[in-house]
Amino acid sequence: MNTVRVELADRSYSIYIGDNILAERGLVADLVVGRQVMVVTNTTVAPLYLEKLLTQLDSFDPIAVRLADGEQYKTLETVTKIFDALLKHRFSRNSTLIALGGGVIGDITGFAAACYQRGINFIQIPTTLLAQVDSSVGGKTGVNHPLGKNMIGAFYQPQGVVADTSVLATLPDRELKAGIAEVIKYGFIYDVAFFEWLELNLDKILNHNQQALVYTIQRSCEIKAEIVASDEKETGIRAILNFGHTFGHAIETGCGYGTYLHGEAISIGMCLAAELSYRLGNISRYELIRGIQLLERSGLPISLPEQLSVEKYLQLMAVDKKNIDGEIRVIVLEKMGCAGLPLSVDSALLRKTIEEYGTIRTE
Amino acid sequence: MNTVRVELADRSYSIYIGDNILAERGLVADLVVGRQVMVVTNTTVAPLYLEKLLTQLDSFDPIAVRLADGEQYKTLETVTKIFDALLKHRFSRNSTLIALGGGVIGDITGFAAACYQRGINFIQIPTTLLAQVDSSVGGKTGVNHPLGKNMIGAFYQPQGVVADTSVLATLPDRELKAGIAEVIKYGFIYDVAFFEWLELNLDKILNHNQQALVYTIQRSCEIKAEIVASDEKETGIRAILNFGHTFGHAIETGCGYGTYLHGEAISIGMCLAAELSYRLGNISRYELIRGIQLLERSGLPISLPEQLSVEKYLQLMAVDKKNIDGEIRVIVLEKMGCAGLPLSVDSALLRKTIEEYGTIRTE
Repeated sequence: MNTVRVELADRSYSIYIGDNILAERGLVADLVVGRQVMVVTNTTVAPLYLEKLLTQLDSFDPIAVRLADGEQYKTLETVTKIFDALLKHRFSRNSTLIALGGGVIGDITGFAAACYQRGINFIQIPTTLLAQVDSSVGGKTGVNHPLGKNMIGAFYQPQGVVADTSVLATLPDRELKAGIAEVIKYGFIYDVAFFEWLELNLDKILNHNQQALVYTIQRSCEIKAEIVASDEKETGIRAILNFGHTFGHAIETGCGYGTYLHGEAISIGMCLAAELSYRLGNISRYELIRGIQLLERSGLPISLPEQLSVEKYLQLMAVDKKNIDGEIRVIVLEKMGCAGLPLSVDSALLRKTIEEYGTIRTE
Repeated sequence: MNTVRVELADRSYSIYIGDNILAERGLVADLVVGRQVMVVTNTTVAPLYLEKLLTQLDSFDPIAVRLADGEQYKTLETVTKIFDALLKHRFSRNSTLIALGGGVIGDITGFAAACYQRGINFIQIPTTLLAQVDSSVGGKTGVNHPLGKNMIGAFYQPQGVVADTSVLATLPDRELKAGIAEVIKYGFIYDVAFFEWLELNLDKILNHNQQALVYTIQRSCEIKAEIVASDEKETGIRAILNFGHTFGHAIETGCGYGTYLHGEAISIGMCLAAELSYRLGNISRYELIRGIQLLERSGLPISLPEQLSVEKYLQLMAVDKKNIDGEIRVIVLEKMGCAGLPLSVDSALLRKTIEEYGTIRTE
């Protein structure tokens, strides 16, 4: 079992990564606070791993809540269902919520834990690659609003994260690929050597090679932990984790939550952000092509959705959390393997980047 | 103008207290962050003070949201209305929410500020005595759930609090008295000299003597600031601020939010908590009688609501935030002017205290 530490003073915690570690007696139970435990999962994950987890928690007599599966349920109404269950079972402030599922379950459950009685303990057990490498780490929790993604939420750190690579065996291929999008992001923004490692080892990851998966998750968590430790509340450098996300969120919101998986939308968003970086003269045409090719080789979408007009992009991007006083701000690469702080981008350039997307590579 | 400082490291802030300070140019505007400002108020306060505040903010082109007035609207649905308005007007993370109103407006607005884009700036302008001496200070924000009061919320500190005593002139008598309940609480739990000062100066406060009001608010805020500074997240001593609240919340929830004002329910709750302290041998019969008399002289209710059975009390008190693993815990006085940490109280004693309430004084 490998461990990555997220250093956040009195809110520090560990990410445990390994093959079949969910079967390791005591690992999850030791992260529990209090005697009342509720596991929040969804109807897809529950038949696969809920029993296995409950067995580890049998001394607590845990309650399980099964939510519907999908980004379209990442709403305040769903959080309310968790509050209802917590109150119905009279959970005290000294109790533990466990998120067993992908990013949606983690975000919803973390937000419920942040708000219930102004904060109770919670544990992340991510069951998708995307959640293991990204959303379960760093304490961003929250839900969507019809007018914008992740607009309602809290910074709230878990007591620990248990990333069992063996659960990825049951993950649909499409979901594995969506997770790879966030992995490739770390290469783009922070670590060109990791980007190159991914170019060489992509096929192993796609074929579920356990060693390659463990390294992928560990290196991703290390990078995220470093960034989060230096800027927990995203007043500066943490914003680079949003590379591709300003465009990506516009695609998710514009096409309706659930049309694209988050990682798929972010893949397209990174293509646009990379093209923008090229247009700003920060990366070469060769680097742009390599970046987009790695996404394409991963089986991720790299074409813009046909139904979104340029106007719609600009309108949706105007409600991004990085914006200040109405100006659209985007993360771009300063060079390959290094993203910069949010940059106010002229709307004419944004418009051109979207309208002429793809022409640079095929010139 | 008097100032009380709440010392909370990088979340420290000042409470400004004085007669007609809302007219002081720059005071509120200097607390604004960003260029987007939204004032949240209710339909009772808006006609009285909204224009006055907006005049101070004219350089920001502020948006005003008017909510219905009353504890029964302190719900997630109301918070959602604020989110809708923030998103409709494309408020960025770098914007400011201002709560203009009583405790309900402050709690709702603070919670909205805590959750919108995971936290934006907010300012408290409390317009009731209760909000000025208690709810606007210390960062407790949140809403009620049908199964329990303040069950959903966040610890989230304002950028500053502006307590203008002149606004109390339009406060209904009943609301002024409800505020006095929390003032008397500070005497009970922390400062017997302040309790004695209140015994001597109660009539001045009830007659809106400005000097007496300013001292009342200042001393109350000083006490609350001291307690909050030493235990922001209520892991220990801060719980003493809940004196009377375990019983009081049960009364509020049991009778339906809005039947009693919060301060009225807390008045009855403090009578019960004081009787319990007497039964535990911690205060004398004379002190008990003095305590309840001061509440009665303030025009506050001191009789239990007839519709609540003992069983109902115990059932409602079982969902209090101070409870651990299902045990009911209550704040009692260790002696007059000094409350202790939450105490697990035998349900037989709780039952006896409620059933035989009042008999001690009339023996």
